[in-house]
Amino acid sequence: MERDDFLDALAERLGERGLLREADEMARYVADWAGDRLGMPRAVARPASTEEVVETVRLCREHGVAMVPQGGHSGLVGGALPAAEGNELIVSLERMNRIRAIDPINFTMTVDAGCILENVKQAAAEHECEFPLALGAQGSCQIGGNIATNAGGLNVLRYGMMRQLVLGLEVVLPDGRLWNGLNALHKDNRGYALHQLFLGSEGTLGIVTGAVLKLSPRANQARTALLGVPSLEAVIALYGLARRDCSDLLSAFELIPRRCIELAMEATPALSDPLDQPYPWYVLMEISASGPLDLTALLEHLLEQGMARELVLDGALATSEAQSRQLWQFRESMLEGQRRRGEHLRTDISVPISAIPAFFDAASRSVMEASPDCEIIAYGHIGDGNLHFNILPPPAMPEADKREHLHALEARLFDVLDEFNGSISAEHGIGRVKQPAYLARLSPVERELAEGIKALFDPDGLMNPGRILPPRH
Amino acid sequence: MERDDFLDALAERLGERGLLREADEMARYVADWAGDRLGMPRAVARPASTEEVVETVRLCREHGVAMVPQGGHSGLVGGALPAAEGNELIVSLERMNRIRAIDPINFTMTVDAGCILENVKQAAAEHECEFPLALGAQGSCQIGGNIATNAGGLNVLRYGMMRQLVLGLEVVLPDGRLWNGLNALHKDNRGYALHQLFLGSEGTLGIVTGAVLKLSPRANQARTALLGVPSLEAVIALYGLARRDCSDLLSAFELIPRRCIELAMEATPALSDPLDQPYPWYVLMEISASGPLDLTALLEHLLEQGMARELVLDGALATSEAQSRQLWQFRESMLEGQRRRGEHLRTDISVPISAIPAFFDAASRSVMEASPDCEIIAYGHIGDGNLHFNILPPPAMPEADKREHLHALEARLFDVLDEFNGSISAEHGIGRVKQPAYLARLSPVERELAEGIKALFDPDGLMNPGRILPPRH
Repeated sequence: MERDDFLDALAERLGERGLLREADEMARYVADWAGDRLGMPRAVARPASTEEVVETVRLCREHGVAMVPQGGHSGLVGGALPAAEGNELIVSLERMNRIRAIDPINFTMTVDAGCILENVKQAAAEHECEFPLALGAQGSCQIGGNIATNAGGLNVLRYGMMRQLVLGLEVVLPDGRLWNGLNALHKDNRGYALHQLFLGSEGTLGIVTGAVLKLSPRANQARTALLGVPSLEAVIALYGLARRDCSDLLSAFELIPRRCIELAMEATPALSDPLDQPYPWYVLMEISASGPLDLTALLEHLLEQGMARELVLDGALATSEAQSRQLWQFRESMLEGQRRRGEHLRTDISVPISAIPAFFDAASRSVMEASPDCEIIAYGHIGDGNLHFNILPPPAMPEADKREHLHALEARLFDVLDEFNGSISAEHGIGRVKQPAYLARLSPVERELAEGIKALFDPDGLMNPGRILPPRH
Repeated sequence: MERDDFLDALAERLGERGLLREADEMARYVADWAGDRLGMPRAVARPASTEEVVETVRLCREHGVAMVPQGGHSGLVGGALPAAEGNELIVSLERMNRIRAIDPINFTMTVDAGCILENVKQAAAEHECEFPLALGAQGSCQIGGNIATNAGGLNVLRYGMMRQLVLGLEVVLPDGRLWNGLNALHKDNRGYALHQLFLGSEGTLGIVTGAVLKLSPRANQARTALLGVPSLEAVIALYGLARRDCSDLLSAFELIPRRCIELAMEATPALSDPLDQPYPWYVLMEISASGPLDLTALLEHLLEQGMARELVLDGALATSEAQSRQLWQFRESMLEGQRRRGEHLRTDISVPISAIPAFFDAASRSVMEASPDCEIIAYGHIGDGNLHFNILPPPAMPEADKREHLHALEARLFDVLDEFNGSISAEHGIGRVKQPAYLARLSPVERELAEGIKALFDPDGLMNPGRILPPRH
């Protein structure tokens, strides 16, 4: 092992399990879930306590070493992966995975930042509570990463983003001081909302080490339906009807195009076409409740109304948990089906819900004009105006040309998005991958404020530098 | 009229209706709703557009004049009232009261900051939507003030504070530049959440001129009940039961002590004792829905369960809107009854919901120890852990001694609160009134960050100076 004063000092403080320096040990920290965007860290620190995070940050500051806080590294914009230059220290929170306290009467839970989301949900359930954040990556993503990225997912229309689910935070600031904002208060109007600033800051303002999460009563019943819908306009109208008719019990309302049903069946041959005939669009919706309500009657009432207005053409209602899981299987398998098609453009955009049909038409026209043989696959969370407007490149295109071609199509898509006052990043964040598109759209005044905030918290520019904003020189 | 270059220039830009300089014209801008805490402004600017706010702020900056942004001035901590020295310019948003757009499909509404909350609620209702913020002052308070103070109120347990109800903001910064963050996007993870920083910043970081509000479907049915409850412990247990049993349809859960029922009957003689016999505590609760659910059955199920567990001893259920208004009348009249008792201590504190009974006991003991003849009146929003723990001074105490006595009791109360990790300001904010108690509890690291944020946005210290933080010298 090479001699390295900084790493030797760090190893002394964190112990043997606390610091990884060998390439093979570090391999699993340097790739995202898709296996791409490899980087190389100087080492991987694995502090086991808030105090050890404090010591790590102090040492980094003394030695001028840049830090990359890392959770489950399931992010999609390269925010938690090290740069290629090999000069950044990954600070993994994975050993800080303790549930510190659960207070079901206060509907709160205090956790270490390294807790895996699935474990948090499980612990809440054991106390008849629910932590409603629901993501594809919930088996590996960590609460600290959910906070850093202001995670969204499937149930945002009912429960909000991570921003709405966090009451308090404990953060090690870039200068090594600890900010203890671990309040378990549902209402607190003392001064500026610092904790909100950390939510969505992608690890650039400090390292979150603990959080107080807001819980809901655990749903003890749910009804799922997969509906065939004639048009995007009908999907939007059906959403409005469902919000009203289901009161606040609507917990998911997912848009799925016909192509995704086919991709799902390709990826999971056990799945058969869910309705008697194909429809251009599908809605996968769920209502859930924790009390004695007749959800079946509620869902049937909605479908009757939807059918009477020709917003729903056919539907499959799950009458058991197994059937419900099967319907959700389409949502999961379609992602696998997409992956199997190889390189493609994934986006994560949002527009006002009311603008979805017009935006989809305009964006599709613009993309198809430039690339008539590509294939558009747009699905998403209707209640959030959030579309994953993805593009498969023309099948005949040489592999080597695909990346550049897709990049050009993304630029066209974003231009259309600008006309609709949309967001180039609804839930994934900016990281490094989306930075050029973000900066190109950032007003001078907002850029100045953002840079001012970064400089205020991290004057030395060592905390996840180059993510969201370019590094200072 | 005295010659004043600054005011003359301002009058030229804002026109005759846009600037008030005479003491009689300014009178209604200098007192809060209780009529106390008078200040004296240099003048009252009443810009009629965002552009006029920009011009006002630029002129203030040129001339080094401090500004006090003002909405309906129904705040309770002196945040929007001018200082006594007569050097501050009130910037009233009252002429900016246009509803710019309503998009019921996107469940959003874009408004001028000077819109009165009641008018916003009315406009939403006309589109079958609901803007769920509900406050005593809703007939006069303005959206800009609701944003500046991160307003709370009666329905927070279901819909959240103002922070959860704002998607985008338009803000004139202290240097006169406009920040346009008027997004109508339900999901948007582009960089730091600047708009969240303005929420609750009490006008110290800029003047909010416009906002995009998040709407809900309009509730078309509600059920109200006033319940007699044996103890605070039972109130807390009943709250947990109600949250679960009513799914997410519980929209209010107010704690009322017996003394407040008496105060309400004193203030409104038409009210008679609501239940057959008196109970130590009452809960005024409401459930509401926008769809075809049997809320009566839901409420009856809850009450059966509550009675079986001896959490509820008796209850009055409103079966009409008129009856429901009558039950809510107790909540309103008790405030009037309190006012009639003359000078008293009003507080606005929060603790974890689970800590309410123990906190109430400890706080009561501490207060009664120091002042055996005072009277404690504690009511509040149970679902938010938010108590208005108020104190009437001993009846025999000379008027001249009351203020100091109550101040000493508040200090005792806050000391107990510290042991429970509570907040000295759950919903009212800091302003000037709560600043000493706030600063005394602020950690050095948090103070430094808060001061850094203030200096970043307002380097000249002209925007609502001395509110939240002391003025810089």
